[in-house]
Amino acid sequence: MRQTELFTKTRREDPADEVSKNAKLLIRAGYIHKEMAGVYSFLPLGLRVLEKIKTIVREEMNAVSGQEILMTALQEKELWEKTDRWDDAKVDIWFKTKLKNGTELGLGMSHEEPLVQIMKDHIKSYRDLPVSAYQFQTKFRNELRPKSGIMRGREFLMKDMYSFHSEQSELDTYYEKVEAAYERVYKRVGLGDYTFKTFASGGIFTKYSHEYQTLSEAGEDTIYISREKNLAINEEVYTDEVLAELGLERSELEMAKSIEVGNIFKLSTRYSEPLGLVYLDEAGKSYPVVMGCYGLGISRLMGTVVEVLADAGGLVWPKAIAPFSFHLVSLGNSAEVIKGAEELYKELAEQKIDVLFDNRDLSAGEKLADADLLGVPYRIIVSDKTLANGKFEVKDRRSGEVSFMTASEITALV
Amino acid sequence: MRQTELFTKTRREDPADEVSKNAKLLIRAGYIHKEMAGVYSFLPLGLRVLEKIKTIVREEMNAVSGQEILMTALQEKELWEKTDRWDDAKVDIWFKTKLKNGTELGLGMSHEEPLVQIMKDHIKSYRDLPVSAYQFQTKFRNELRPKSGIMRGREFLMKDMYSFHSEQSELDTYYEKVEAAYERVYKRVGLGDYTFKTFASGGIFTKYSHEYQTLSEAGEDTIYISREKNLAINEEVYTDEVLAELGLERSELEMAKSIEVGNIFKLSTRYSEPLGLVYLDEAGKSYPVVMGCYGLGISRLMGTVVEVLADAGGLVWPKAIAPFSFHLVSLGNSAEVIKGAEELYKELAEQKIDVLFDNRDLSAGEKLADADLLGVPYRIIVSDKTLANGKFEVKDRRSGEVSFMTASEITALV
Repeated sequence: MRQTELFTKTRREDPADEVSKNAKLLIRAGYIHKEMAGVYSFLPLGLRVLEKIKTIVREEMNAVSGQEILMTALQEKELWEKTDRWDDAKVDIWFKTKLKNGTELGLGMSHEEPLVQIMKDHIKSYRDLPVSAYQFQTKFRNELRPKSGIMRGREFLMKDMYSFHSEQSELDTYYEKVEAAYERVYKRVGLGDYTFKTFASGGIFTKYSHEYQTLSEAGEDTIYISREKNLAINEEVYTDEVLAELGLERSELEMAKSIEVGNIFKLSTRYSEPLGLVYLDEAGKSYPVVMGCYGLGISRLMGTVVEVLADAGGLVWPKAIAPFSFHLVSLGNSAEVIKGAEELYKELAEQKIDVLFDNRDLSAGEKLADADLLGVPYRIIVSDKTLANGKFEVKDRRSGEVSFMTASEITALV
Repeated sequence: MRQTELFTKTRREDPADEVSKNAKLLIRAGYIHKEMAGVYSFLPLGLRVLEKIKTIVREEMNAVSGQEILMTALQEKELWEKTDRWDDAKVDIWFKTKLKNGTELGLGMSHEEPLVQIMKDHIKSYRDLPVSAYQFQTKFRNELRPKSGIMRGREFLMKDMYSFHSEQSELDTYYEKVEAAYERVYKRVGLGDYTFKTFASGGIFTKYSHEYQTLSEAGEDTIYISREKNLAINEEVYTDEVLAELGLERSELEMAKSIEVGNIFKLSTRYSEPLGLVYLDEAGKSYPVVMGCYGLGISRLMGTVVEVLADAGGLVWPKAIAPFSFHLVSLGNSAEVIKGAEELYKELAEQKIDVLFDNRDLSAGEKLADADLLGVPYRIIVSDKTLANGKFEVKDRRSGEVSFMTASEITALV
């Protein structure tokens, strides 16, 4: 894409009404637009990152037999009353609205209830189990004072998967598969080294849930990690009893601030019982279906990548989720530079390589600062100097390493 | 995909609470689930169709330089008051909600206002124009009594594009390009022969808007069409004056019921003026930006395809938007049939061809009825008979035509 065609512009100054690094940088770089606190629109570059994260998560959920669906935001009161999650005194983050006739509705903040309701039409027998379904869907949560940019939104994109089983043991096995899938996701989006599976509080039916926590000073959570054992404990369950149970000593754990980038939970029959989702076993006896749920905030994950990887110059995207693979920047207005840059752009485009081509008529300083701010993994400079040299200058945005390459060496990078 | 793994089940009986053909069939076939009137979840097969329609529309919007973005549902009152579209007496389809602190918000039923607001950060000069941006986004409209299935939802998926220009003449040229793109969309999704560009009422700034109307007895609109001239007039502007202006005679027009599957509109400065979206010309003089908008309901289009193409046996999907290209159905339980079907399934899968493989242990009658109901373009039968014959039986779902083919002849169909 030619940058002259991209409608978004960068800005030098931080927005005055943001405190989080992710919101400041993403707004300055033109990736997102703030509608109100905790509510952000995604502009072309931001949406490209979001979609790349979605593609990775989709591949990994499909790999554990997840079937993709799309549920609705509008929710009926009666359904959520059955599980005692309608009352604002019980769940305090609802957005509520009304039909013309006065019927009260909610805007989905999670989707256990509606999916259980759907499954009542499709699960009858043990032969229909196990089943796993997931969606990428907009969640609404009426947060009091959101100030963490796209890491905690009032409206945000989430992947939520729910699994349905006849036996607890089958859920346990599946749960481990999903754990492995989650680990692959964090690794692929570039957060593998910073993300720990964390024991967190459970519920009525299970002692623990598990979170995935990414180390970051911007995090709202405190965890205690063992790098050696590659796991962590959330502060909320950091007790002697839990430590003993997990065979951990306080001395081997290190305290850290972190961002919750995933939460997986064995629900058992918490939702299937009140909603009447049952199956018949081989003998024709009826049992409530055993469930698991697996959440992963897509926009939060994007914000976390910014918090962890961005540097003083701006955004830094891992290759797998960058809006473009290359940022081709022409410096100077000589006929040779224009021709050289156009030729390389066409060559890369012909090979279906994603390139953002900064063909704007701006100073070198402005263009280089913008390239750093946008954070595309490789910056390619075409200038009179590089042309005389016979090779293009390629800078790795993350390491800062500069090398000189031919066009074919450049294409070999992706 | 193996049908034993697909979690949705079909049902024989129409749902009692639906009157529209699209909702009845899509629910029976397990493509969608009704949450409440006008609010439907998309199950795996339904989502596959929806995504295929999105891909076609995305390609065509990109082809007219549309840049994809994603705006939000939550909307601020102050913004919409500026254009006089907040008051329920003026716009009677709002869903309204509230923040914890009592601040009233709306759920976006269209997105002119927020996009104009976004563009104020990015459009300053005539050099920044023209620009066109679009999204696939969930719209909320508080319809009084929706009863047309996914054709008219309270919550539905829409593609809305907005273009920004310095001159009316530039908008006029762009508008024609979008018209051509819309025509390509309808043709590609299989509605080309039934869809007419229709003159409809305009607004303050323009005499007409244009709709795309698909002929169907299920339609809520009445249009007057000239098949010869390939255009139509909406009943709302079917007057002598308009006829004279368009050079049409009543005698050459045929009355028909139709479904509105698109609406494009020259907005001029209707939104840019009250919201202050201006650009500076070469002389540094300030002018309001001239706009166009281009809507296309994705879920409505899917519902329209069902209304127009489904037959007594069930759904009929055009190849371009079918959930699968082939429905491979094994009949009987002989070792040869199981082996023959498995081999063909693997062969098609290896070639990355989308196949739904009905490997269920059900009667031939049930499996054939389900295949008709699901509406995949080609049904392939593997049975003792077809194996003895040395070729597979392939039925074209739409025409009913049956032929006998080898595996390589089958793969050549897509």
